[in-house]
Amino acid sequence: MGKFSINPIYKKCCKTDISKIELFNLELSIFVTIFTFLEKLIIMTIKERIAKLRLVMSDKKINAVIIPSSDPHLSEYIADRWKAREWFSGFNGSAGTLVVTKRKAALWTDSRYFLQAERQLKQTNIRLMKMGLSDTPDIYDWIFINTPENGVVAFDGECLSSSIVKDFSAKFSKKEIRAVSDFSLINNIWENRPEISNNNIFSLDLKYCGKSRASKIKDLQNYLIDNNTEAIILTALDDIAWTFNLRGSDIKYNPVFISFAIITKEKSYLFTNKSKISEKDYAELAFDNVEIQNYNNIYFFVIEANYKSVIVNTDKINYRLFNTLNECSKIIDSKTIPTLSKAIKNEIEIGGMKNAHLKDGVALTKFFIWLEKTLEKRDTSELEITEKLQEFRSQQSEFIDESFSSIVGYKGNGAIIHYSATPETNATIKKDGFLLIDSGAQYLDGTTDITRTIHLSTPTEIECRDYTTVLRGHINLAKAKFPYGTRGSQLDVIARMPFWENALNYGHGTGHGIGCFLNVHEGPQSIRPQENPQIIEAGMITSNEPGIYIKDKYGIRIENLILACESEKNDFDNFMNFETITYCFIDKTAINKNLMLPNEIEWFNNYHKQVFDLLSPHLNTEETNWLKQKTSEL
Amino acid sequence: MGKFSINPIYKKCCKTDISKIELFNLELSIFVTIFTFLEKLIIMTIKERIAKLRLVMSDKKINAVIIPSSDPHLSEYIADRWKAREWFSGFNGSAGTLVVTKRKAALWTDSRYFLQAERQLKQTNIRLMKMGLSDTPDIYDWIFINTPENGVVAFDGECLSSSIVKDFSAKFSKKEIRAVSDFSLINNIWENRPEISNNNIFSLDLKYCGKSRASKIKDLQNYLIDNNTEAIILTALDDIAWTFNLRGSDIKYNPVFISFAIITKEKSYLFTNKSKISEKDYAELAFDNVEIQNYNNIYFFVIEANYKSVIVNTDKINYRLFNTLNECSKIIDSKTIPTLSKAIKNEIEIGGMKNAHLKDGVALTKFFIWLEKTLEKRDTSELEITEKLQEFRSQQSEFIDESFSSIVGYKGNGAIIHYSATPETNATIKKDGFLLIDSGAQYLDGTTDITRTIHLSTPTEIECRDYTTVLRGHINLAKAKFPYGTRGSQLDVIARMPFWENALNYGHGTGHGIGCFLNVHEGPQSIRPQENPQIIEAGMITSNEPGIYIKDKYGIRIENLILACESEKNDFDNFMNFETITYCFIDKTAINKNLMLPNEIEWFNNYHKQVFDLLSPHLNTEETNWLKQKTSEL
Repeated sequence: MGKFSINPIYKKCCKTDISKIELFNLELSIFVTIFTFLEKLIIMTIKERIAKLRLVMSDKKINAVIIPSSDPHLSEYIADRWKAREWFSGFNGSAGTLVVTKRKAALWTDSRYFLQAERQLKQTNIRLMKMGLSDTPDIYDWIFINTPENGVVAFDGECLSSSIVKDFSAKFSKKEIRAVSDFSLINNIWENRPEISNNNIFSLDLKYCGKSRASKIKDLQNYLIDNNTEAIILTALDDIAWTFNLRGSDIKYNPVFISFAIITKEKSYLFTNKSKISEKDYAELAFDNVEIQNYNNIYFFVIEANYKSVIVNTDKINYRLFNTLNECSKIIDSKTIPTLSKAIKNEIEIGGMKNAHLKDGVALTKFFIWLEKTLEKRDTSELEITEKLQEFRSQQSEFIDESFSSIVGYKGNGAIIHYSATPETNATIKKDGFLLIDSGAQYLDGTTDITRTIHLSTPTEIECRDYTTVLRGHINLAKAKFPYGTRGSQLDVIARMPFWENALNYGHGTGHGIGCFLNVHEGPQSIRPQENPQIIEAGMITSNEPGIYIKDKYGIRIENLILACESEKNDFDNFMNFETITYCFIDKTAINKNLMLPNEIEWFNNYHKQVFDLLSPHLNTEETNWLKQKTSEL
Repeated sequence: MGKFSINPIYKKCCKTDISKIELFNLELSIFVTIFTFLEKLIIMTIKERIAKLRLVMSDKKINAVIIPSSDPHLSEYIADRWKAREWFSGFNGSAGTLVVTKRKAALWTDSRYFLQAERQLKQTNIRLMKMGLSDTPDIYDWIFINTPENGVVAFDGECLSSSIVKDFSAKFSKKEIRAVSDFSLINNIWENRPEISNNNIFSLDLKYCGKSRASKIKDLQNYLIDNNTEAIILTALDDIAWTFNLRGSDIKYNPVFISFAIITKEKSYLFTNKSKISEKDYAELAFDNVEIQNYNNIYFFVIEANYKSVIVNTDKINYRLFNTLNECSKIIDSKTIPTLSKAIKNEIEIGGMKNAHLKDGVALTKFFIWLEKTLEKRDTSELEITEKLQEFRSQQSEFIDESFSSIVGYKGNGAIIHYSATPETNATIKKDGFLLIDSGAQYLDGTTDITRTIHLSTPTEIECRDYTTVLRGHINLAKAKFPYGTRGSQLDVIARMPFWENALNYGHGTGHGIGCFLNVHEGPQSIRPQENPQIIEAGMITSNEPGIYIKDKYGIRIENLILACESEKNDFDNFMNFETITYCFIDKTAINKNLMLPNEIEWFNNYHKQVFDLLSPHLNTEETNWLKQKTSEL
């Protein structure tokens, strides 16, 4: 959404009839022609940029350059200023690392982006390295092999984590390869590199946060006292936004602002652009003993401060900043300060998240009514749906933005896990087959993330088996009871059991943490096969999103958010369970009830009753009747 | 059971009638009186031994002594020579560490042994430290607090692993506490300390091993070549027995022999008592280029060899031996060489294990017939059953010994997880309530480990719920399909799901690896909640033993061994499943069929059909008819 500048043409077609859709398709085909031309232009440009980079490498006697997909905060989503890998390769997936040597160039990305990267790297002479395949070399092994003894590997130390640099430096040392971290070349080569946005930072009201900034800072200061440590350096943007009860809009979808922060026992320092803060907020921050410093001043400040002991998250602190600390006597590596406190939502945040999901459920109900009506009259498309989703959500109070780029995948496109429709791929949607819609929003009171898959005609037996399996996996996790102390890697299996029984599986995790009017992905908890020592604590909100993907045919995913709660305590254990806090009907078209267990059907009917009871007061009579039918008992 | 010398009296009663049982009970009561007197004597002795130890500590200016439960091979079961903790404390559970300071003495053990340790430490002035309880201090924290600055903590460096010593030394250094590892004091204080047994070592025929000694050594040598390393030092007794296709009887229940081994690219060294090896085996070993060295020579040998690079398992190498290596330039820590190869059974071993289980199933069927008949006539007891189990097993071909001390727990005793009946605790068994029997055997062709719980009258509703829950957990794991790459901590949940649904749980793991005519517990795989990075490989045999324990009422556990196998491969994944290789009926008395799912009932009926088909050819007509009824469909 908004990623492609077709909105002006497109918006005209939204309140449309069939003839307008034909016009829209015509315009779209013109657009595709232009797009193809632009793509050729991009290939030429990419080759020139790499050539220019190699000239500089040659001048400076550099053998290889690493260009990753990250910012100085190791963020998942990044601002344009740090999209160097995209600028040099043309590949714009969210994950990928480019390596350029004197003669070779290669880009590593994961299975979510194989198709997209193949297309975008075509003819650029950049080799695609498919991560996770057995014959794909590890990135640092490849660099090691392709760099001569005593060679030089350069990178921007601000954009790689200290833990990664530590790992590959150890490897490189076996060939006396030097890792040079002050690679600012990109600034010289990258003309018109975007600046950091100057968007406002704003205070989030206590009625949304539930805990004051002063109180959060006090907790961190108590932690410092308990651990006899001088300072905590906060580097993750969502940790900073949460701690200071501030929000921004420097990164699309993530309401954060580019900053660092330091908490000492006496006072706090926030490193960001002063001009982004209103006078009122500035005064309030000062009242809470928070001093504002320039963003770039962090490095100098840390050197000057010369802390004898600090707490940092070595996965989230960039190498350059970590290096300024190296003289310190004691560095405590914590993955959970304050990430764990942020993940355990307080009562106000839980209330806000539920309210946000209520609004989201109303918006989605109206959207699905629109979709059904539209398909009765005419075809639609993935892009039109993407637009419509935002339109319905933006009618809800306190709506700010989408929480990520919507995934609207029709038939085969639904099987591409991180698909995002483009004018090129945009599928026409008819009354046939599966349509997968994964979308979410940022409201002032909470963040949403929901996936529904609907079948638009009569499903086949195998489609029903697959859909019912996904639903059963989803229900199994939603209704799970488990002892306190259980980790996400254990819970992941609960969702997968119905899949494994049928020799099915899915290649992604079952659940990720989610922020409260913050990032749609957050830690420390996760529900996935890979081990993560973090146990599930009451108050954590995690997604529940099993899926099935049949290449070129369809993708099915059903996603709600689940809140971990304390349940019964007895002689055996202290048990916990989940409360589902996403409220939207789940399509019944492709359910084969015979494959479901009685307690699964019971959960489903209860959930649908709850959805109806919560949403109907916010719907008109026609909408209420429609939802009544959609949520009727199995 | 050989552990208590009551066998001579006891054996007389075995082929008995009711009057003989009364005689047996009388004899037993006399025995209990003697036992109580002996116990008082033991308390006095313990106090004297600790006092003597403190004198030596005082002389040598030692502030604390650590006396663990392990041998120089960090074995789970140990020979009498290394039972120093038992000698000094009187507590004879399999796990526990005694610490003695100038004024205090404390013994740490886990929940399996709380009751037993409470009883055995009574009046000894040794404080019981219940591990796992929130108010119990960590053992090394406690030593740290109870030792003055610059103090000395002594221990036998041969009986603690290098990784443990490394951990606590780091902690102690904060108070400048010295950890002294040459604590041979025990030798001086411990009069008549048992010697290492002189029992024979014997070759295990290729028809049982399936892979020659030469070929196993070659594999290790190839591993050395691939990793450019000079030597592998084998320290775990079962790893050595497996690698050299040799067995012994130095440790009760475990057919291993006290030894170390070193494999280099050119030759192998086995450090053990030469006199234990027959001339024929000696010649064969020499033919395979295996040199025999004296057991105690290992330390000197390693110093002399001065390897530049070695592979060891730091959890299984004792601190003294590890310390002799410290000058080496490169120590590779491997938890899986050759432990992983040993765990992945070859076709011959799998065939042997299945055959051993067939014999075990025949023995158990005969035993359960005896039990049923006996209970129709008279009461029996836990100790009589323990004896009878061995009697029936010993009638089977290639029987060597039990594989562990049988757990026969009637009613409340069944709730004590590692219970072993003693004359003191020996319960009289009537036709009422649950009886739990966990036992196993060593046959030349394989090792068995099986638990059955039978109900001896009419179970209550709650007893049926509990029994059916355990059975469902067992079945869920037995019939699980899962993708290649799955770890045991993920599979553990599959067995627990029926428990968690009912807010039930059990405090032990679901499964452990098992050797082939080797230790009843072996790694590297496990099926338990704790993370273990080892994935389940085809050919691994693991136990499947969920349970429920109701204090003072009953324990229910159902245990079979399961063999991991390759199953179907498709576009989603390469799937695996389990084949159950224990063949014995599962008591139906306490099953509530209404609580079971159709596919669980199907598994159960199929399993019972298989048990009947496999065992009946080895039973007489009466036995066959009995089994027919026990294995009839649910």
